[in-house]
Amino acid sequence: MKLYTSSRAPNPRRVLMFMAEKGIAGVGLVPVDLGKEEHRAPAFTDLNPMAQVPVLELDDGRTLAETRAICTYLEGLYPDPNLMGEGFEERAFIEMMDRRCELQLFLRIANAVRHTHPGLAVLEQPQFADFGTAQAEKVRDTVRWLDGVLANRDYVAGERFTIADITAFCALEFARGLMKFRPAEEGFANVQAWRDRLAQRPSAQVL
Amino acid sequence: MKLYTSSRAPNPRRVLMFMAEKGIAGVGLVPVDLGKEEHRAPAFTDLNPMAQVPVLELDDGRTLAETRAICTYLEGLYPDPNLMGEGFEERAFIEMMDRRCELQLFLRIANAVRHTHPGLAVLEQPQFADFGTAQAEKVRDTVRWLDGVLANRDYVAGERFTIADITAFCALEFARGLMKFRPAEEGFANVQAWRDRLAQRPSAQVL
Repeated sequence: MKLYTSSRAPNPRRVLMFMAEKGIAGVGLVPVDLGKEEHRAPAFTDLNPMAQVPVLELDDGRTLAETRAICTYLEGLYPDPNLMGEGFEERAFIEMMDRRCELQLFLRIANAVRHTHPGLAVLEQPQFADFGTAQAEKVRDTVRWLDGVLANRDYVAGERFTIADITAFCALEFARGLMKFRPAEEGFANVQAWRDRLAQRPSAQVL
Repeated sequence: MKLYTSSRAPNPRRVLMFMAEKGIAGVGLVPVDLGKEEHRAPAFTDLNPMAQVPVLELDDGRTLAETRAICTYLEGLYPDPNLMGEGFEERAFIEMMDRRCELQLFLRIANAVRHTHPGLAVLEQPQFADFGTAQAEKVRDTVRWLDGVLANRDYVAGERFTIADITAFCALEFARGLMKFRPAEEGFANVQAWRDRLAQRPSAQVL
């Protein structure tokens, strides 16, 4: 299999971290340069009409896009360790937390960065800086919620590491790099402690 | 089980349509009045801190939020007819299409409506009308893509009805009501024909 990816982009990082946690080796990485708009060239949009990385190319040539859908496929091929839930009940509750992290945290951070960062004007056309600034404020609301969640448990979806930790971690690392967002400085000690623990995992080093 | 829902809101409609397709009966509906901000009252945010409908209350009292996570749970309890894929490979490809419909269609329509409709100012604080208008333009890009998909197949994710059809249908019905968006008038005949076929299903009548 081949993974089309972009170095340091947050969505590819989610898949790379997911693969590292499972010890999946042998997937070739094909770099896509977003700054040069390679993701909008026909050679790439033939693989994913949404013009987004990552994309997984299967051995039979079919291509699978959308970060979480790629993880669903890899979870099926490489079930251990389980990261998305055993059985439908646990899968549903982990999906709930993963979606909250994706829709209320990751997406707000992405909106804040893409609509306000001059270097990302090529990716977000047109930018709306006032919308981006308001989204950055809402990021704080979500991190406040997450801080409360992590007051009572060690991981986002419960007592073990799951895909929801990956989604939240990659979102907050993106915010750390491009919004200079530090949970401890904002008063979110539980999120900071969780983030610092996750940053020790070998999978967190893969970019 | 009980489902906290709001009449005519698009996300609750996705779950109601999903249940109707499976013939799930006996789930009590608990109305939540978004106009009166009941979703922001502690009685509701105790069930879902994200202050969003729908929420499924299980028989043991636990609450499950997030539309697609609720569907994952119901698919496990009521496997027939299958709407989310048999086995991990089909599940992944259906999830890819469902996510495209949710993130590129549903969310853009929701952003367009919530940021521009005066009647939704209470739900979206603050509104950014210029961002909303730009999102409405991008809805056309996604419908153009969907029109191409439906040129070659009868349903969004392949040759059978799945959750991806529900997501796209509920998004476009929301756009029909609040943005007066008619696919045929925009030149998207395949989407219009698919929409008109889906509108004949009994599950499409549930609001």
